[in-house]
Amino acid sequence: MLFFNFNRKYYGEKIGIYFAWLGFYTEMLLFAAVVGTICFIYGFLTYDENEWSKEICDENIGGKIVMCPLCDKKCGYWKLNSTCNSSWQSHLFDNVGTVFFAIFMGIWVTLFLEFWKRRQARLEYEWDLVDFEEEQQQLQLRPEYETKCTNRKLNRITQEMEPYLPITTKCARTCLSGATVLFWISLIIACIIGVIAYRLAVYAAFASIMKDNPTTHLHVVGPLITPQLATSVTASCINFVIIMVLNLMYERVAVWITDMEIPKTHLEYENKLTVKMFLFQFVNYYSSCFYVAFFKGKFVGYPKKYTYMFGEWSNLRNEECDPGGCLIELTTQLVIVMTGKQVWGNIQEALVPWLMNWWGSRKARGHPESLYSRWEQDHDLQGFGQLGLFYEYLEMVIQFGFITLFVASFPLAPLLALMNNIIEVRVDAWKLTTQFRRPVAAKAHNIGAWQEILNGMAVLSVVTNAFIVAFTSDMIPRLVFMYAYQPDGEMNMKGYINNSLSVFNISELKPANRPEDGENPFWFNSSITTCRYRDYRYPPGHEKEYAHTMQFWHILAAKLAFIIIMEHVVFVVKFFVAWMIPDIPSDVRARVKRERYLVQEYLHNYEVEKLKIQLSQNGHNECTCTPMIYPSLPRHEVLSECL
Amino acid sequence: MLFFNFNRKYYGEKIGIYFAWLGFYTEMLLFAAVVGTICFIYGFLTYDENEWSKEICDENIGGKIVMCPLCDKKCGYWKLNSTCNSSWQSHLFDNVGTVFFAIFMGIWVTLFLEFWKRRQARLEYEWDLVDFEEEQQQLQLRPEYETKCTNRKLNRITQEMEPYLPITTKCARTCLSGATVLFWISLIIACIIGVIAYRLAVYAAFASIMKDNPTTHLHVVGPLITPQLATSVTASCINFVIIMVLNLMYERVAVWITDMEIPKTHLEYENKLTVKMFLFQFVNYYSSCFYVAFFKGKFVGYPKKYTYMFGEWSNLRNEECDPGGCLIELTTQLVIVMTGKQVWGNIQEALVPWLMNWWGSRKARGHPESLYSRWEQDHDLQGFGQLGLFYEYLEMVIQFGFITLFVASFPLAPLLALMNNIIEVRVDAWKLTTQFRRPVAAKAHNIGAWQEILNGMAVLSVVTNAFIVAFTSDMIPRLVFMYAYQPDGEMNMKGYINNSLSVFNISELKPANRPEDGENPFWFNSSITTCRYRDYRYPPGHEKEYAHTMQFWHILAAKLAFIIIMEHVVFVVKFFVAWMIPDIPSDVRARVKRERYLVQEYLHNYEVEKLKIQLSQNGHNECTCTPMIYPSLPRHEVLSECL
Repeated sequence: MLFFNFNRKYYGEKIGIYFAWLGFYTEMLLFAAVVGTICFIYGFLTYDENEWSKEICDENIGGKIVMCPLCDKKCGYWKLNSTCNSSWQSHLFDNVGTVFFAIFMGIWVTLFLEFWKRRQARLEYEWDLVDFEEEQQQLQLRPEYETKCTNRKLNRITQEMEPYLPITTKCARTCLSGATVLFWISLIIACIIGVIAYRLAVYAAFASIMKDNPTTHLHVVGPLITPQLATSVTASCINFVIIMVLNLMYERVAVWITDMEIPKTHLEYENKLTVKMFLFQFVNYYSSCFYVAFFKGKFVGYPKKYTYMFGEWSNLRNEECDPGGCLIELTTQLVIVMTGKQVWGNIQEALVPWLMNWWGSRKARGHPESLYSRWEQDHDLQGFGQLGLFYEYLEMVIQFGFITLFVASFPLAPLLALMNNIIEVRVDAWKLTTQFRRPVAAKAHNIGAWQEILNGMAVLSVVTNAFIVAFTSDMIPRLVFMYAYQPDGEMNMKGYINNSLSVFNISELKPANRPEDGENPFWFNSSITTCRYRDYRYPPGHEKEYAHTMQFWHILAAKLAFIIIMEHVVFVVKFFVAWMIPDIPSDVRARVKRERYLVQEYLHNYEVEKLKIQLSQNGHNECTCTPMIYPSLPRHEVLSECL
Repeated sequence: MLFFNFNRKYYGEKIGIYFAWLGFYTEMLLFAAVVGTICFIYGFLTYDENEWSKEICDENIGGKIVMCPLCDKKCGYWKLNSTCNSSWQSHLFDNVGTVFFAIFMGIWVTLFLEFWKRRQARLEYEWDLVDFEEEQQQLQLRPEYETKCTNRKLNRITQEMEPYLPITTKCARTCLSGATVLFWISLIIACIIGVIAYRLAVYAAFASIMKDNPTTHLHVVGPLITPQLATSVTASCINFVIIMVLNLMYERVAVWITDMEIPKTHLEYENKLTVKMFLFQFVNYYSSCFYVAFFKGKFVGYPKKYTYMFGEWSNLRNEECDPGGCLIELTTQLVIVMTGKQVWGNIQEALVPWLMNWWGSRKARGHPESLYSRWEQDHDLQGFGQLGLFYEYLEMVIQFGFITLFVASFPLAPLLALMNNIIEVRVDAWKLTTQFRRPVAAKAHNIGAWQEILNGMAVLSVVTNAFIVAFTSDMIPRLVFMYAYQPDGEMNMKGYINNSLSVFNISELKPANRPEDGENPFWFNSSITTCRYRDYRYPPGHEKEYAHTMQFWHILAAKLAFIIIMEHVVFVVKFFVAWMIPDIPSDVRARVKRERYLVQEYLHNYEVEKLKIQLSQNGHNECTCTPMIYPSLPRHEVLSECL
């Protein structure tokens, strides 16, 4: 608290409240990290119990199952036990503990937001900002607003003439800016789809190049440069470049369209800019995770009729998930994006200003202290611009999104976030005190538009986690198998692997889908006639050949029922908790009321005193306008009579 | 508006705001009634298109389907075409228009609540109640509170000693009162289950009595007194008596436990009592509709293994829905309860006080005007007690529940409610002005706990309507049939009836379930070997005999998917609409701010004036404590120094 108070007195409330929020968030992360670690340990301790992984790795079960190729032509048949490792890893995250943790985080998020409201109310009071908005912000117009708005009308609060924007102009400008934001978001989504298409297209190309010219790669690096790796690396590079370019351009566009909207006050300007920037960054950072969680591997079709990205002619067959399951892929994606973003973010945040300062002061550094004075050194530091604090918040809110929206796939995320934040708060403080010019102090009594953004994420996270457990993880199919389709009638997972894979007659495979290597993989002794794929469809020869089986619909019903139950339970608990915890601590509320009461008492005494003076000075004269001594008349009527 | 203002000036704000709310609610009902009527007309115009009713009524399709008995022993087999009429009626409410209307009402409810908030904010301002709560209610303790609380502590607002309740006592009392409410709610649910059990038990008894003694009923009324009617009438009477008795007892209990909680202020007392009474009345009025919508006919089992209410030994086989479908039964229930309640409510409201006044003044009426003066006449009128306004609100809120929670089964409900309210507002006004002593005027700046109750209902209504469309109506099974199971592969409903009924081999029927009449109904020429029942199970002779078919799971998945989609869409729209509409109209907000601004200006001028007077009187002396002239210091620090 002392630190925030120092912070506030040196940097102003706006930066002070950022550090207060960051500190509070880090404190609350501790609980989430502890529970998340326990859930992870639970997955670790029940490691031996997952029979399906044993079956996959078993040479007699998984070793005898030939799977259908994962892509057209270039991919061959493969043995199921080659996914042995990723199946074991998958169990660490794909167990009942994770479902519990997803529910826990739904409630943790609510507690976090409710307790933050209380903390904020306390700070607001202690920093004397209770009437801040009304007193100041509402009456202080932005200079741009004053110059750009030529129409004038009466301000209904101060009763002075002030510039204003006609409602039609305002609507038109808002619509235009909304359309621009939508356009840029569509642009980024189009780019992401483009990159996915690139991956699909290039994968085959790389596979064939490397196969045709075995001499082009050296023996040492040969096994490392697989088609998968080459595709991933080039795709990531393209993705990165596109996102950076779009980011740079969008930043200018966002400032430009916010200027165009001509917000009235600085507060409004900032909130509008924050929402615009955030919407874009949300799509930017989370789209890959959303793709892996909800789209990848969901629309692949089946061997007789694979689904293609832009129709069959495009030749871009939709990607299947990693053979170990979709969840492990989401986990990997999350770990890479999150760790990468945090490490890179911290380095960039600390290093870039330091390097720029080092470069900026390179000439002066040679001079003695007397010639390169303190104020010159301070002036050479980086400026903390308009978007300075925005990026600090953004970093944390994006992290908040990772630990809430996708927590069902990776319970260690809060622990990662906690470790990052302990460093982050220090890096930020160091950076702000030594690498930047002291920012102009500004007042703020809350975290602004970020509050609403966090609330929205808290609600969204319940939905995403329910869908991840239902559709990305394999939990529900496994439970349905155990309770309803176990052939022995016992409650175990024996035979799950065989049950979860459908059979396809490879003679029916279209020429376009056949592997170029020929029918039989070299590692298989006898010739094969069927391959297996992940789906619930009738086997060849059945009267409803390749139609969905009853188990498919049964599992789908179970998945949807899980979503309904989880969402209803978590939302009921959430709203109940939010309703139980008052937004303002009772002592703060009492003190605020005490002050209002004192002001009223004060006004009353003034009236009495004034009347006394008047009576003693003028004798008995006409009644002057004193609202407080006519308690029976509505105050606004008296006041409007007065002025 | 004029009427409310008169109302408020004569009766006080508390009754004024009730009439304002009632008027606003009636205005908004107009829109719902118009759209609801259009949806009903849509159902009426598409009357001829429902092929399933044609099939049911067709002598060659419905006339040839023999259905399994609906109850044990006493019920016989029946022909499907006997449900011809109710099937046609059912289509009036069970069509796409109703789904549209359910979604529309989800949004209407949001608009209603949001616009009411705005109306309320405007009234609050115009009636000068903006600072009402802080100014008055908080400082005015209930006399009971003052006498019962012996502990005293410092009030943090006025800095005076005041009685208080220790936190432990408060918790204990709240828990005790919560437990009592729960106990009474369980009691009413137990009674309702008891009545259902009574119906199940008595139905068979009546059926057998009437069969055994055909001489006991006359030929004229004979066909009218069916076992169904006898059961319904006696069950309804028992239900009515139980509910009335519980109601009377609970009213006393609710007042008693609210007294026991010792609420601090009158406002708190009223809100606590309202919530307690409402929870009970909610269960009281809606439980029958909830039972019909979500429980009746859902857990009947199938001919080989019927489900019994308290286990097989109880002999109480769970009720099946009306052969015409569950939705038409819900509609009937709703129409009866709603119309009955409204007609009865209005008569009771008007008639009971009038009769009591008539009886109370019977002696005095003979006297001439001079001997039975105006004030005596007024004194002989009924008193408008503590719960007077509560019952007025309750009546309307229960009605609001009927038109929102179950609207998917009866789109004409808002029209009924509108017609009732147009009468209601006049009856209430007449009653209050002529049949009751003028109530003690009280202030209120909102509708209190009812606001929260309405909000809760608005959220609940989206959930109930989604579940009604999915599980009570037959819409989803029909759509699934049309898109996926139509044997011709065309998009029509031909063959739906045959598809939706499973086959049972009557030789497998347990003796307990067999009709006593013998195997063959008299109206059937050939002997029957199978009967049909509503479910999706494999026919006898199939390898998975009587297990659920794929279609069952397919339909279940479609139902759950519908719930998920409808809830998400409606909630997103709801929250977006609620977020778009500001709670306080902008002109009211500006005027409130204007007044705050004036008060500050006023305070400032006072300080300046006071200083001037002081300086002119005393010359230059020590600085007195004047918070407003130290703008740089936090106000609470200055104020705490001052006092």
